[in-house]
Amino acid sequence: MTRFALTVEYDGRPFMGWQRQRHGPSVQQAIEEAAFAVTGEVATVHAAGRTDAGVHGLAMRAHLDVAKPFAAFRLMEALNARLRPAPVAILACNEVADDWHARFSCVGRSYEYRIINRRAPLTFERGLAWHVARPLDAEAMHVAAQRLVGLHDFTTFRSAHCQSASPVKTLDRLAVVRDGERVLVRTAARSFLHHQVRSMVGCLAQVGLGRWSADDVTAALEARDRQRLALNAPPDGLFFVAASY
Amino acid sequence: MTRFALTVEYDGRPFMGWQRQRHGPSVQQAIEEAAFAVTGEVATVHAAGRTDAGVHGLAMRAHLDVAKPFAAFRLMEALNARLRPAPVAILACNEVADDWHARFSCVGRSYEYRIINRRAPLTFERGLAWHVARPLDAEAMHVAAQRLVGLHDFTTFRSAHCQSASPVKTLDRLAVVRDGERVLVRTAARSFLHHQVRSMVGCLAQVGLGRWSADDVTAALEARDRQRLALNAPPDGLFFVAASY
Repeated sequence: MTRFALTVEYDGRPFMGWQRQRHGPSVQQAIEEAAFAVTGEVATVHAAGRTDAGVHGLAMRAHLDVAKPFAAFRLMEALNARLRPAPVAILACNEVADDWHARFSCVGRSYEYRIINRRAPLTFERGLAWHVARPLDAEAMHVAAQRLVGLHDFTTFRSAHCQSASPVKTLDRLAVVRDGERVLVRTAARSFLHHQVRSMVGCLAQVGLGRWSADDVTAALEARDRQRLALNAPPDGLFFVAASY
Repeated sequence: MTRFALTVEYDGRPFMGWQRQRHGPSVQQAIEEAAFAVTGEVATVHAAGRTDAGVHGLAMRAHLDVAKPFAAFRLMEALNARLRPAPVAILACNEVADDWHARFSCVGRSYEYRIINRRAPLTFERGLAWHVARPLDAEAMHVAAQRLVGLHDFTTFRSAHCQSASPVKTLDRLAVVRDGERVLVRTAARSFLHHQVRSMVGCLAQVGLGRWSADDVTAALEARDRQRLALNAPPDGLFFVAASY
């Protein structure tokens, strides 16, 4: 048995999310079916993060065990051939130790949230960004974001379906930058709660629109109450960027 | 009558090109139908360039005459509302003089051609870039590209359907840069022949793959013979970037 680490890029638009679902296609199922077609073996593909429906991956890390002998490059090429036409690509594949685990060995995860801030509707990036038509003050968003960095109880920013043992997490980074009509929110932590990034971005957007102050963000955080959340940003703009080990 | 200049972004994938066609949807038709829905007037929309099927626009310039009084901003908003769900967006709209013409007043056009150079297939950018799986030497491409800059007879790089009066054109810029897995070809001229950018990129790709030398590019140019062309790069990677007046 050989364990292979995969780096996976996927366009989340047609999927119900990373994880296998009874009611629709998932990235995990697409890769597991491709792997079965290539190896003839039934195997589970584990990922660093289980992204929601409509969320994208730029370099999701995952792993797969294969009993038959395969060269990593050949396995990657064969998986990519079998994945067509699904918008999922294996960018890299390499052998790892048997105890390396894409999810449990991961010590850092980073996401990017993309907002397109302009009057005109989206063309190329429909489903790939959150369209906010009113002007956003990205600097105010960045300043307010710093209220969330550090060790906090993120109950306000956690979905009702979150399976994490504790709402207390350390947020390492939450940075907001403007690049022309794009407003990018970049965040990193050892791990995130379910919906945490989208919930934080939803509140920061209120700041950007001038409806919330930085103090309102602090008050929402300290309330430890999901009802205090402004709104969840849509999944469209969320990209899993990288996992570190 | 007021003449409005439009700046148009469009995803070329679902279109037969800019220009109205009997056999399928075009960007021109989409905008003219939106304008009719907004103004009740039948009007022709003229563009700086008539891009081919599958070619995209980042900031195509066009113009439209409207008899009824309209504020430019309101016209833009109304056109965008009527253009949905077509992937066409009016980014800007402003009043111009009656003798300003999007095509005939244009004194400079620029394009970008996007290549994604990696083993893995495309996901997000399927139809929005040319996928070249074998390694390209972007520096060699850039050096060879300089052989095409300047005043030349571009017959080799001109489609059989080209309607230009002369194949002699001045190419102002043809630059190739690598940005990670992306190889970008940026070009500018007063005007281009039909298929000129895609023909030039097709030859430069041969250089990047090591099959052609810079001297082969010069020889193809000097032959003034379409048969000497290597290949046309696909429309997928071509973006009309800007028009100057």
